[in-house]
Amino acid sequence: MTNKSREQLYNFQKSTELFSRAAEVIPGGIYGHISPILMVPGLFPNYTYHAEGCRYTDVDGNEFIDYECAYGPMILGYKHPVVEEAAEAQRKLADCTNHPGEIMVELAEYMRDLIPVADWVFFAKNGGDMTTYATLTARAHTNRKKIITVRGHYHGIAPWCTAIGHGGITPEDHLNILTVEWNDIEGLRKVVKKYRGEIAGFIATPYHHPTFKEQVMPLPGYWQEVESICREEGIVLISDDVRAGFRLHMGGSNEYFGFKPDLICFSKAMGNGYAISACVGQKELMNAASKVFATGSFWFSAVPMAAALATLKELKRINAVEKMEKMGSMLMNGLKEIGNRYGLGITISGPYAIPFMHFTRDPNMYLSQIFCAEVSRRGSLLHPSHNWFLSAAHEEKDINETLNHAEEAMKVTKDYVDRKAVATF
Amino acid sequence: MTNKSREQLYNFQKSTELFSRAAEVIPGGIYGHISPILMVPGLFPNYTYHAEGCRYTDVDGNEFIDYECAYGPMILGYKHPVVEEAAEAQRKLADCTNHPGEIMVELAEYMRDLIPVADWVFFAKNGGDMTTYATLTARAHTNRKKIITVRGHYHGIAPWCTAIGHGGITPEDHLNILTVEWNDIEGLRKVVKKYRGEIAGFIATPYHHPTFKEQVMPLPGYWQEVESICREEGIVLISDDVRAGFRLHMGGSNEYFGFKPDLICFSKAMGNGYAISACVGQKELMNAASKVFATGSFWFSAVPMAAALATLKELKRINAVEKMEKMGSMLMNGLKEIGNRYGLGITISGPYAIPFMHFTRDPNMYLSQIFCAEVSRRGSLLHPSHNWFLSAAHEEKDINETLNHAEEAMKVTKDYVDRKAVATF
Repeated sequence: MTNKSREQLYNFQKSTELFSRAAEVIPGGIYGHISPILMVPGLFPNYTYHAEGCRYTDVDGNEFIDYECAYGPMILGYKHPVVEEAAEAQRKLADCTNHPGEIMVELAEYMRDLIPVADWVFFAKNGGDMTTYATLTARAHTNRKKIITVRGHYHGIAPWCTAIGHGGITPEDHLNILTVEWNDIEGLRKVVKKYRGEIAGFIATPYHHPTFKEQVMPLPGYWQEVESICREEGIVLISDDVRAGFRLHMGGSNEYFGFKPDLICFSKAMGNGYAISACVGQKELMNAASKVFATGSFWFSAVPMAAALATLKELKRINAVEKMEKMGSMLMNGLKEIGNRYGLGITISGPYAIPFMHFTRDPNMYLSQIFCAEVSRRGSLLHPSHNWFLSAAHEEKDINETLNHAEEAMKVTKDYVDRKAVATF
Repeated sequence: MTNKSREQLYNFQKSTELFSRAAEVIPGGIYGHISPILMVPGLFPNYTYHAEGCRYTDVDGNEFIDYECAYGPMILGYKHPVVEEAAEAQRKLADCTNHPGEIMVELAEYMRDLIPVADWVFFAKNGGDMTTYATLTARAHTNRKKIITVRGHYHGIAPWCTAIGHGGITPEDHLNILTVEWNDIEGLRKVVKKYRGEIAGFIATPYHHPTFKEQVMPLPGYWQEVESICREEGIVLISDDVRAGFRLHMGGSNEYFGFKPDLICFSKAMGNGYAISACVGQKELMNAASKVFATGSFWFSAVPMAAALATLKELKRINAVEKMEKMGSMLMNGLKEIGNRYGLGITISGPYAIPFMHFTRDPNMYLSQIFCAEVSRRGSLLHPSHNWFLSAAHEEKDINETLNHAEEAMKVTKDYVDRKAVATF
């Protein structure tokens, strides 16, 4: 391990310049979940130049070991040869035309066989296309209107799942939305009782992953209770597996947590970066699903479907789930050990393949900002306020290199604390 | 011209078989705007094998001259070398990563310079991502709730713009939606007066293109009146140019019709088949736009942006707009002449680059089904109930070949009429 001098640390001049240009012509410059406003300005990259495996290079020529994985989509490594070969073979034939390719049927059949819950499969582009589609399917199936969600959820950007206060969202958009707390069975029972006969569906992520907060796993028995309440009350149970899908279990994260939803929404990792999403469901829901009006200009494009089929097969072949858990465990336990050594308590949350850490005494996440910025300037990308992602391309040597970056960054973070430059509690 | 015998006509056996397999595992088999239920079963292709230029081959090996152009996205020809080269160059660097590429800034700047209305540009995947985003921007800008739409519109699949009766759509989804008739200025004035101070935006396509009906151009002065009413009342004027964009004018179809909206939504043709959409707007709206919560897993992918930049530049370089109008005029006037010769009146509607025809005496569009099916079996794809699209890849020889297919198909259609096998009026 070498201690880098200040001169050796990355600088992000071109990223900063490009962002200034962008801010003139794009609202927010870079918007949404990848917005740089979530990070200390000038200490993180803003634009990618090149990506391969688990590493990418930004426009300033800095190379990073990547633990955001495009915020989920990259799961086998950028430009994975097996995926790219399948995509290129399909690209040579046809992509977006008047009809789907045969690949759409092949992919649907493969996913039906792969995913225990799936009797049928529906494809779109965004994860959010599918969470909305699932709620409409639940309504069409039950002939009821209300959807129960979990406070602090993320199901996309549709008005029904975007908080009032964001631009353009009206109270009317939430008239049929009910909210319960995560892991709160009694709260759920109460709402179900109050609105008996009016509730079409319950939608939640298989574990809770709010931004700016630690991730929360389901309590033992939680999902089994939820499932049993839904069955009793005729409520359609929707697992939003857009973020976690194929990182915890190839059959859906519900298999990992031991429950059977009626509908599962997938996207992100299923095409290793190619734009595709899917909703799978049980047979009883197929008729209702076919009554929902849903279509899109690029939804039948054959290249992302070829990429998805290759991705799913390869993930299964190499047992990627097990590898990601192993690498994530090595990373997170390594970080915890480093933190302990510097007297900075670290809380790890979520599954190892989609982990998050925060400093135990860091109410405003300032230590996270400092720590992650210092890691970034040394060559690993750890996000201060959004959960991380492992990929099957991460090897022990990558984790070790990141732990070296973390060691140096922890020392700097400790200096801040010692100089009382940051409030802790 | 050769008259094809029944044995020489295309058959669609593999398409039909594949569709049967699909129907087992995909709700509707093939859903949405490309659903085969809009066409006579067994007489049209359902699955694409290969596509290049203005032609594609289905899974049965039948080749078609294509006048749907992937329902809009294909505008330069499938696998256009200039677009594919730009996409491939970007693909070798990076596509979907943690950050955008420099290409995002370049594309935004290019579109700002290309499109008179555009002071800023925002990117997403689906056209419908952007029509919803535009309505939210209008709400955020005006601090009002209601959106005026035109009866029979198509703005995507979000609940606010999907008719009640489709699965899962509730009356609550439409609480803030008002409806006026197309080309009806007095109706618009009435609604504006009734809801004065409550109306955030007016959204419409630059000309009216309902499915199953003839297309309707704006009456002279219509858009200018609409614009003036919106200015007076502080209503945000939104042009949904997702379908028509870049086929009538490179600066937005509003330039073709002579009006200035506040926001324009683009998608379909802008990436020649690569999945991308955009909303552009005037400076006054930029702050409101940045308050709308909008993001997506694949929205920053660099390859579709590289494809879009190459597509727009190439369209401009070759003056594609003029060529598509010329080829469309040749096609539509040719069809009209053939119809007249067989004593079957044909009504042409919409602009030549995005034309549609129906038989004047054909209340249930049965003649259209017969005619288009007979054309399909001979090697051209003309849709019986959805508007058509020209591309810059269509040459005179293609149009002539299609007119030959049409000549034979018209003869068969005339036979049906003579045998009184179809009701006309």
